[in-house]
Amino acid sequence: MNNGMFITVEGPEGAGKTTIINMLANRLEAEGFQVLQTREPGGIEIAEQIRGVILDKNNTKMDPRTEALLYAAARRQHLVEKVKPALEKGYVLLCDRFIDSSLAYQGYARGLGIEEVFSINSFAIEGMMPKLTLYFDIEPEAGLERINQHKGREVNRLDLEKLDFHHKVREGYLKLMELYPDRIYKIDASRPVEDVYKQAEAKLKEVLEGKI
Amino acid sequence: MNNGMFITVEGPEGAGKTTIINMLANRLEAEGFQVLQTREPGGIEIAEQIRGVILDKNNTKMDPRTEALLYAAARRQHLVEKVKPALEKGYVLLCDRFIDSSLAYQGYARGLGIEEVFSINSFAIEGMMPKLTLYFDIEPEAGLERINQHKGREVNRLDLEKLDFHHKVREGYLKLMELYPDRIYKIDASRPVEDVYKQAEAKLKEVLEGKI
Repeated sequence: MNNGMFITVEGPEGAGKTTIINMLANRLEAEGFQVLQTREPGGIEIAEQIRGVILDKNNTKMDPRTEALLYAAARRQHLVEKVKPALEKGYVLLCDRFIDSSLAYQGYARGLGIEEVFSINSFAIEGMMPKLTLYFDIEPEAGLERINQHKGREVNRLDLEKLDFHHKVREGYLKLMELYPDRIYKIDASRPVEDVYKQAEAKLKEVLEGKI
Repeated sequence: MNNGMFITVEGPEGAGKTTIINMLANRLEAEGFQVLQTREPGGIEIAEQIRGVILDKNNTKMDPRTEALLYAAARRQHLVEKVKPALEKGYVLLCDRFIDSSLAYQGYARGLGIEEVFSINSFAIEGMMPKLTLYFDIEPEAGLERINQHKGREVNRLDLEKLDFHHKVREGYLKLMELYPDRIYKIDASRPVEDVYKQAEAKLKEVLEGKI
């Protein structure tokens, strides 16, 4: 029933995820794979509505647990309407962020607990864990510098305050690698794009070939 | 810190919950208690928005697990903004429906599993279980007849189709009574209003006195 391959990509902004996902998708398509790129809420109407509640700037009173439950709800709907059907049709699915983002950000960095956030997400995904997760690892300072270069601005005070949080997020991801050593593969995202791509491509091929 | 008393009332439509809650609230206030009546989403903006997504008639594709996560999210926000503050101020809080509704409707009747639905709600309420739950028990047929009398219409085909579901919901509540015999108190809601009120009042007093 489930013939496709579910791959997720994780890591902070500024790690170059989008660029590499595009390169990987192009390569896989050139090799004859059916590829679908997605990220939550991914145009799924109900998931978009839920995301709208999360991002509404007036919702300043939102409790971190409410937020975590809403992310899990949006994840569920995106999974049911987009991830599952694509996998059943045999696609290689490249999903930009999935359960590990909730575990690293809400579970670890916000302090709700990795296990607790896993339990609500486990209800949401019903065992549909990715086969491979490419984790783009980069020092928060280096990621921040890249984002700012991109936007043509300097590092400011707010950025520096956020740095502390992003260090925690990174700690969270490294913790997840200990919990899921077979699933999560760390890629040194501080290297030039070509190198990062090569690391990602090599691992992806290994997993795709293991499949056949 | 938590000086109030958290009471929930459960049972199907047509069991007379609202009438009895009003009578209990009046009685308790006459005896000098500070009383707050509420029901989710209870005017809490974020919870109302979430409920809006659940009830949106266009959202026909909503998966039952998405729905259960959204109910848990709305519950969390209502709990943080309304239930907790009232209990901390020493109120007797009468809440029309709470976790048991999710367990009976989604967990049991919809087949998601009582334990699974409990786990996401447990994340939402962080141990804040009611001290007492008054369960208004009535045969679905009798409840339905009452609702229809109220609306001045006859039982129709759709009603009958729903009956099957409401029988399952009732089975769910009876299951919950086995799981939580000390918390959930069953009241025979098929009796005349005065009798139902007396049963509810007697149990409530017992619990309130046990507190002092």
